[in-house]
Amino acid sequence: MSWISENQTENLKLSFRIKKRLLKTRSKFQLIEVYDTYEYGKLLLLDRKVMFTEKDEFIYHEMIVHPTMGMIKARNILVIGGGDGGTVRELLKYPVNNITLVEIDEKVIETAKKFFPRMADTLNDKRVNIIIDDGSKYVLNSEEEYDLIISDSTDPIGPGKVLFGENYVKAISRISNVLVSQSESPIFHRELIKKFHSIIKKYFKNLLFYFVPIPTYPSGIWSFTVGLNVNIKKPNNKSQKFYSPSLFEGLTHIPEAFKIK
Amino acid sequence: MSWISENQTENLKLSFRIKKRLLKTRSKFQLIEVYDTYEYGKLLLLDRKVMFTEKDEFIYHEMIVHPTMGMIKARNILVIGGGDGGTVRELLKYPVNNITLVEIDEKVIETAKKFFPRMADTLNDKRVNIIIDDGSKYVLNSEEEYDLIISDSTDPIGPGKVLFGENYVKAISRISNVLVSQSESPIFHRELIKKFHSIIKKYFKNLLFYFVPIPTYPSGIWSFTVGLNVNIKKPNNKSQKFYSPSLFEGLTHIPEAFKIK
Repeated sequence: MSWISENQTENLKLSFRIKKRLLKTRSKFQLIEVYDTYEYGKLLLLDRKVMFTEKDEFIYHEMIVHPTMGMIKARNILVIGGGDGGTVRELLKYPVNNITLVEIDEKVIETAKKFFPRMADTLNDKRVNIIIDDGSKYVLNSEEEYDLIISDSTDPIGPGKVLFGENYVKAISRISNVLVSQSESPIFHRELIKKFHSIIKKYFKNLLFYFVPIPTYPSGIWSFTVGLNVNIKKPNNKSQKFYSPSLFEGLTHIPEAFKIK
Repeated sequence: MSWISENQTENLKLSFRIKKRLLKTRSKFQLIEVYDTYEYGKLLLLDRKVMFTEKDEFIYHEMIVHPTMGMIKARNILVIGGGDGGTVRELLKYPVNNITLVEIDEKVIETAKKFFPRMADTLNDKRVNIIIDDGSKYVLNSEEEYDLIISDSTDPIGPGKVLFGENYVKAISRISNVLVSQSESPIFHRELIKKFHSIIKKYFKNLLFYFVPIPTYPSGIWSFTVGLNVNIKKPNNKSQKFYSPSLFEGLTHIPEAFKIK
């Protein structure tokens, strides 16, 4: 009986019983692994960290997209990271004109196309323009403006680190009025979130913070942060498998214990 | 470096790095273990299943109590299980007259008093009446009526199994208009919840179902079910560390993927 474990923190491990290993390869940037698990279907690990599982990825990808897409009319969108296609899949449920996806690691896209077609097939849509580049450099040099930028990053270690830094957020605020970013666990990564929020507040008039249960992420509770130079509205869009406007409204009421002070 | 693991399902394990084992003993009913963990403080296991950790128990205990206590004025309350005192601690935040706690395993209470005083000290309150008995037998024979019964049970294996069955629910409906029960994971235990809900609907006019993120429970998402022979109201009580009326309202909007059909 074979198991694969993620060290969620140095003191906590989540282990999946696996049917088989489907891929183990090293790209220029990271170790990429795919396993077929009994409990959660196929699992993608980058540098031994769970990126998503087939069975629960809808929660993350719905919740990084639908709350904001229910608030603003975004037609020209930039996604930083997200080479798996999950975020693009959710965005394509709206009448968007153009999605530019900037993924640093081409091998992530290849891997997703091979093992996660229900996510990555959406990358073939003619409205999607894929650029293989460092997302941080891309926004620093971009002259194009976007209605929305989604920072669908890995953890702030390795290539994902700059995507929580001031230069990146400042550059984004120059080319977009709205930034959505995943922002880690409100239980385990409070200092990081605090710092990130102080940067967001410097470059955006409004900050929206909400939390989401994600079974396979450390602490099972994750957060998203939206910076807006437009007003915050109540979203009024369609429910998905996890997302609904009413549930989302509840999740913006951050519990006292998770508040970032 | 020492670890303790819970098999959350046969295909999924959560492991805690531990400072030390504080207790390992067998009662008449179950194996009782207490460990001091690095990530979540002290941890109680019954028959190798995580009951709670010091760091996240407030979510479970607040969410089994406050939603319903914000809807009804309960003064005479029966708690089945809950020998750790967490549920009683939350109930005592209201002007209750009497709490009867029926715990099958005296050793659970002893263990909690020794290792979890912030929970179990509340059992010394003069309004709390502790009875060591089988909760199911107790309600079958009870002539007393209660404003509220809380079924703070272990998993429906071993001594907890009857607390999801028809005889128990029927007996409760005879002596109380309101039953709150923990109802397992809406991801892993859907058949159990379906059966339990069909029983609740048979004996109670209204059913309220909500979900809660709990980091150390299987799937990280747990559920509670309330059966009421009174009308469902919007709670309007004080916020706690996790609970607030607004967050709770959101969590009653069960995502499509978790709906029990």
